[in-house]
Amino acid sequence: MKRKFRYGMVGGGPGSFIGDAHRRALWIDNAAELVAGCFSRSSDKCKVTGTELRLDEDRMYASYSEMAEAEVKREDKIDFVVVVTPNSSHFEICKTFLEAGFHVACDKPVTTTLADALELQRLAKERDLLFLVTYVYSGYVTVRQAREMIDRGEIGEIRVIQGEYAQGWLADEDVSGNKQAEWRICKDLSGATNALGDIGTHIENLVYRMTGLEITEVLANMEMKVPGREIDDNSTVLVKYNNGASGSYWASQVARGHDNGLKVRIYGEKGSIVFVQEESEKLWFTLEDGYWREIHRGQGMIYPYPASFERLPSGHPEGWFEAMANLYRGFTNCVHAKEQGTFNKDMVDYPDLVDGIHGMAFIEACLESNEKGNVWTKVATAD
Amino acid sequence: MKRKFRYGMVGGGPGSFIGDAHRRALWIDNAAELVAGCFSRSSDKCKVTGTELRLDEDRMYASYSEMAEAEVKREDKIDFVVVVTPNSSHFEICKTFLEAGFHVACDKPVTTTLADALELQRLAKERDLLFLVTYVYSGYVTVRQAREMIDRGEIGEIRVIQGEYAQGWLADEDVSGNKQAEWRICKDLSGATNALGDIGTHIENLVYRMTGLEITEVLANMEMKVPGREIDDNSTVLVKYNNGASGSYWASQVARGHDNGLKVRIYGEKGSIVFVQEESEKLWFTLEDGYWREIHRGQGMIYPYPASFERLPSGHPEGWFEAMANLYRGFTNCVHAKEQGTFNKDMVDYPDLVDGIHGMAFIEACLESNEKGNVWTKVATAD
Amino acid sequence: MKRKFRYGMVGGGPGSFIGDAHRRALWIDNAAELVAGCFSRSSDKCKVTGTELRLDEDRMYASYSEMAEAEVKREDKIDFVVVVTPNSSHFEICKTFLEAGFHVACDKPVTTTLADALELQRLAKERDLLFLVTYVYSGYVTVRQAREMIDRGEIGEIRVIQGEYAQGWLADEDVSGNKQAEWRICKDLSGATNALGDIGTHIENLVYRMTGLEITEVLANMEMKVPGREIDDNSTVLVKYNNGASGSYWASQVARGHDNGLKVRIYGEKGSIVFVQEESEKLWFTLEDGYWREIHRGQGMIYPYPASFERLPSGHPEGWFEAMANLYRGFTNCVHAKEQGTFNKDMVDYPDLVDGIHGMAFIEACLESNEKGNVWTKVATAD
Amino acid sequence: MKRKFRYGMVGGGPGSFIGDAHRRALWIDNAAELVAGCFSRSSDKCKVTGTELRLDEDRMYASYSEMAEAEVKREDKIDFVVVVTPNSSHFEICKTFLEAGFHVACDKPVTTTLADALELQRLAKERDLLFLVTYVYSGYVTVRQAREMIDRGEIGEIRVIQGEYAQGWLADEDVSGNKQAEWRICKDLSGATNALGDIGTHIENLVYRMTGLEITEVLANMEMKVPGREIDDNSTVLVKYNNGASGSYWASQVARGHDNGLKVRIYGEKGSIVFVQEESEKLWFTLEDGYWREIHRGQGMIYPYPASFERLPSGHPEGWFEAMANLYRGFTNCVHAKEQGTFNKDMVDYPDLVDGIHGMAFIEACLESNEKGNVWTKVATAD
Repeated sequence: MKRKFRYGMVGGGPGSFIGDAHRRALWIDNAAELVAGCFSRSSDKCKVTGTELRLDEDRMYASYSEMAEAEVKREDKIDFVVVVTPNSSHFEICKTFLEAGFHVACDKPVTTTLADALELQRLAKERDLLFLVTYVYSGYVTVRQAREMIDRGEIGEIRVIQGEYAQGWLADEDVSGNKQAEWRICKDLSGATNALGDIGTHIENLVYRMTGLEITEVLANMEMKVPGREIDDNSTVLVKYNNGASGSYWASQVARGHDNGLKVRIYGEKGSIVFVQEESEKLWFTLEDGYWREIHRGQGMIYPYPASFERLPSGHPEGWFEAMANLYRGFTNCVHAKEQGTFNKDMVDYPDLVDGIHGMAFIEACLESNEKGNVWTKVATAD
Repeated sequence: MKRKFRYGMVGGGPGSFIGDAHRRALWIDNAAELVAGCFSRSSDKCKVTGTELRLDEDRMYASYSEMAEAEVKREDKIDFVVVVTPNSSHFEICKTFLEAGFHVACDKPVTTTLADALELQRLAKERDLLFLVTYVYSGYVTVRQAREMIDRGEIGEIRVIQGEYAQGWLADEDVSGNKQAEWRICKDLSGATNALGDIGTHIENLVYRMTGLEITEVLANMEMKVPGREIDDNSTVLVKYNNGASGSYWASQVARGHDNGLKVRIYGEKGSIVFVQEESEKLWFTLEDGYWREIHRGQGMIYPYPASFERLPSGHPEGWFEAMANLYRGFTNCVHAKEQGTFNKDMVDYPDLVDGIHGMAFIEACLESNEKGNVWTKVATAD
Repeated sequence: MKRKFRYGMVGGGPGSFIGDAHRRALWIDNAAELVAGCFSRSSDKCKVTGTELRLDEDRMYASYSEMAEAEVKREDKIDFVVVVTPNSSHFEICKTFLEAGFHVACDKPVTTTLADALELQRLAKERDLLFLVTYVYSGYVTVRQAREMIDRGEIGEIRVIQGEYAQGWLADEDVSGNKQAEWRICKDLSGATNALGDIGTHIENLVYRMTGLEITEVLANMEMKVPGREIDDNSTVLVKYNNGASGSYWASQVARGHDNGLKVRIYGEKGSIVFVQEESEKLWFTLEDGYWREIHRGQGMIYPYPASFERLPSGHPEGWFEAMANLYRGFTNCVHAKEQGTFNKDMVDYPDLVDGIHGMAFIEACLESNEKGNVWTKVATAD
Repeated sequence: MKRKFRYGMVGGGPGSFIGDAHRRALWIDNAAELVAGCFSRSSDKCKVTGTELRLDEDRMYASYSEMAEAEVKREDKIDFVVVVTPNSSHFEICKTFLEAGFHVACDKPVTTTLADALELQRLAKERDLLFLVTYVYSGYVTVRQAREMIDRGEIGEIRVIQGEYAQGWLADEDVSGNKQAEWRICKDLSGATNALGDIGTHIENLVYRMTGLEITEVLANMEMKVPGREIDDNSTVLVKYNNGASGSYWASQVARGHDNGLKVRIYGEKGSIVFVQEESEKLWFTLEDGYWREIHRGQGMIYPYPASFERLPSGHPEGWFEAMANLYRGFTNCVHAKEQGTFNKDMVDYPDLVDGIHGMAFIEACLESNEKGNVWTKVATAD
């Protein structure tokens, strides 16, 4: 039995969707307790959230560096830190906590450059620390089921992949007043990409988690569809994989009628698999006979390993929090194993810095392809 | 801000699905901490679960009466108790805790007779205590949205209701080895009904929560479809409501291909509403123009009150645990208000003993109708 | 190769939906030519339609009896007659043409009483004539596929059947101006039932064609939901079958949002089959593993006999006209075989007077059950 | 009232799917009679089909040129010719009949080069003749409804279009024995493209019919996914339109599980529309409120012009034949108007040589783009 871990959080102050989401995902398994936090750069706001979460006052920190410094000295120090700040600050914060000797869970994208992601990897290896990048969608039981079906060869060699992430929430020209939207469409705050960086990378990672295939080349077309936009709100990427397969990814925030339409279709020589995030309790597949099967999380056809992540019987919907909780379950299993001295690398069943690095290499190659006029461009991780 | 409440649990020992489910639903909002428990009549098993849940040893109780007695004397006593034992013991346990002055949350069906349910109501009123009956499906945001649409008159006076709860898990003749199945098909353990009592009552309550309509008469046909069954595994009930509407409920555990197929269709003079539990993020409705609209939890069309229960944006699936957590949110709001002296009855937005009594009256009338050869039979609560 | 048959039509004048539908169904296979008609009791209207259809003027008849009399004498007489008049006149017209020695195709319900249907059967047998009752939905390839799967035992002994036919087009109180609606809600024109007689009988026949099961008893509740209605617009029937299975049929014309929602779900001991008329290109089934398969008309899994009725590859939608044409294909095959002297009874693969008689017996038993206060009532054909 | 036209057919001999399909589409409206044919280059096979179709022997022609020559001299000559031969012969046949003064209906693609299509256009203009190119999918009522909604500005200016045509029938490496498949994968018989030319052009035309937008540039990636393939079986095309919108088209014949998966999604500034060919009775759209509406052919929301093509009420499925028949209805309306001297160009509501030319220009630009390494390439019709 694992003890109940202690963790700290950087980011996740008043009004933060993602901080709240990580906390609930950890609560649902009662596996870790939040004991420290630097929830905001404003120490007032930090205290509001800290108080709401019933933290001890001396563990509501004014800065993340202070937090790292103070925690490391405590007997009852945190076991890991969760980083849910805006993307541009991920690198410095993660670096600080790694250097202080803490395991890290960080929201995606892990950094803003490939070089930074590689530097974090170097540090984590040097200090022998764990690093979870919370690509949440890879946590679904049905995603893991798909991966196992593919690994067992049930659909044969993969030939074609169609990925899409369609949203409509940035379709309006005027998004003033919508805090989440305002910073996303702003180049200074979001960096060189929005649609591709924010949601396109989820396609990239989900395909990677489902298939294990690596992208060798991309041809990206990144477009601004809403008048006045500075960065992409509708991007299409043609993709080549290391096994000869090819794919097409579409990431859009101007596709009215779509809430969070992440969908991956994988066509192999012997069969096909379809995953639809908004219907994540289901998985569709076909074999050489060409008709569709619909299986549900919880049913007997789910293989033992994915089934081991189930908390409810079939027909009792699990959702987004459980997907996130599944990542943390793997991560805290590893934290436990590190503590017990039983850890080995095969236990890592969650996206880590390898995923983070793939994500950054994918984005950098897409940006280059787009700047050069939509031409095929090598992806760094393919070497 | 509410303080974090303390609660105790009766039932929910090793292998209990429902105990685990209640605990997670409470964890997800971090609103209450489990501090005491009598998880099993076996004190060994009770300790296994108590230890796993990191309880203090002196609050792992050998019997529920001991627990009630001990807790009531503590300074840091529990704020409420959660009862998740087999149905036949609900009454005695709830009675004990009410008499000891504790608020109670109890799984459905609240008792095994209407008389017992009425006795609990009398007690709760006398002691001025809260009582939640965890008809989980009424907690969904989309169910509350449906209720508000109906209350606002959007589909006009209701004319026809079609309810069904289809499952396939008891379709096999031999269910030996399946612990959940074994006791359910056994008359001694389950009582006079299984399909109707276990799942048919969920239809009854869901319709009641969605529409506010009361059932006046039933005509029930309770059947054993699998050879050797002692109690119903496939039941159909024709229903009349107090506004002149009529309905039909079908509850089956032998309908292969259905996991947890609870579905309610409500047809009014001006429009229709469809709720499908396994697709609980969605709600379908039509108006006089006759075409279907699909709205999603999280979208702008959801009214403010149901929307106040949302934890994630649209397209990020919430599920069964959140539905249960929504019941507990309302319940703990009331516990808080009781403590603050601000409670009033209009705050009760969750199923309570009124629902429990309706459920028992419905079952008793169905049993009578069935015994008499499927004839129209008055429902006690209709008076 | 069959010669192109000649047929005549009674009914189907200006504005008739059903006459037009039968003609197109016959055109689509180019199997028979319309050469004679009594399209309306008004000889003016008859000529309008006859002229539009390019008939010879001497074969546009003022009355059906004149038509029978004249045609029988011609060298190039019609090979069969199609009767698409209002239900109340079916019997006299069919009788006249049978007596004149013509094969008959008649829309459902074949008569208005069981006695009349039996009389037609007696006549047809006596004269050795063919009789098609156009229960159109039994013509779908997927319906025939379902029947063959059931006959092969793929879902085992049938236990439970859920049938429904939901429409919303009579939900408005005021239907004046809607010609189709006006006569249907009128007791004088429609007879003792509307919802049950007009659409409920389609459920009854479809289940019979899909399963071969016979209904032994019914318990019917026939209701008027719209204020001012004289005959049922929302009916529910509990059903017992000759193999011990049971079912529930719901026929409604006040269910807003439903166009033509005929749906049959069949649950067997080993699997389930679902047919949805509005999605008639598809068939869903599950086996003991409990997950759903979706097969499409045209795919390899369709058995040879049902596949022999396909005109287009999978994914190229066939529809209602093709279903009707499939009935006529079987019927004209038999007309051809009669002519060639190669006919035998096993060739009859379409609904005939046996189906018509079952339909009338079902309706009469339902009416009796309803009048007696919704009690179990024997069905005449069950003897 | 139109008279019943006479038509001839070139192609459509024994085993031809498409010839049979055209004939049924014309039968279903009883608008034209087949009186002449050159069904095969083998005169034996021609006679087999001619006899089956009950043609006069002197109008079963050994060659199409003989047919044109002979028909033109007859009093009762054909009113138009239907050309359903393999693509490579379309040009010569159509040219011959245009030169002989006949209106022409020809299957898509109309020619194999843009130059040939332009030559046919020149000829048709010169002789003042009608020319239907049977892009069947544009005939659906729901497609015409979508066009009218877009023309009325209901979804605002179009920004993004996603088109796909997914099939799985060529996923097997060995297709020997499948006659339809064998010639399609053969470069000599099919020309320079298969997936793109055979089905990708249907996306191109369908988008054009639905939106009226013209493609200015393409970036095409045409791939062979099955080992041994000589021409593309999986193609992706990025597209730019003349209003600034962009799109992505995916045409695949190796996507197991898809029968005939033609789907177009159109995202405008104010709303979205989705058409799915295999569900052609339905149309989905959303407006600025972001939730989906599902309307059905036959419902009141369908605008008068598209509704004028309906043959059955909503919920009574029409399908592929009716879509084709709708093209012929427009075409024969124009043939009639020509005869009456009432024709004007606005009556042309079907795909004609303008569509055919767009199709050829699209293919040629894609081939060029692909050869040059997937670079943006101008489309000739954009000038």
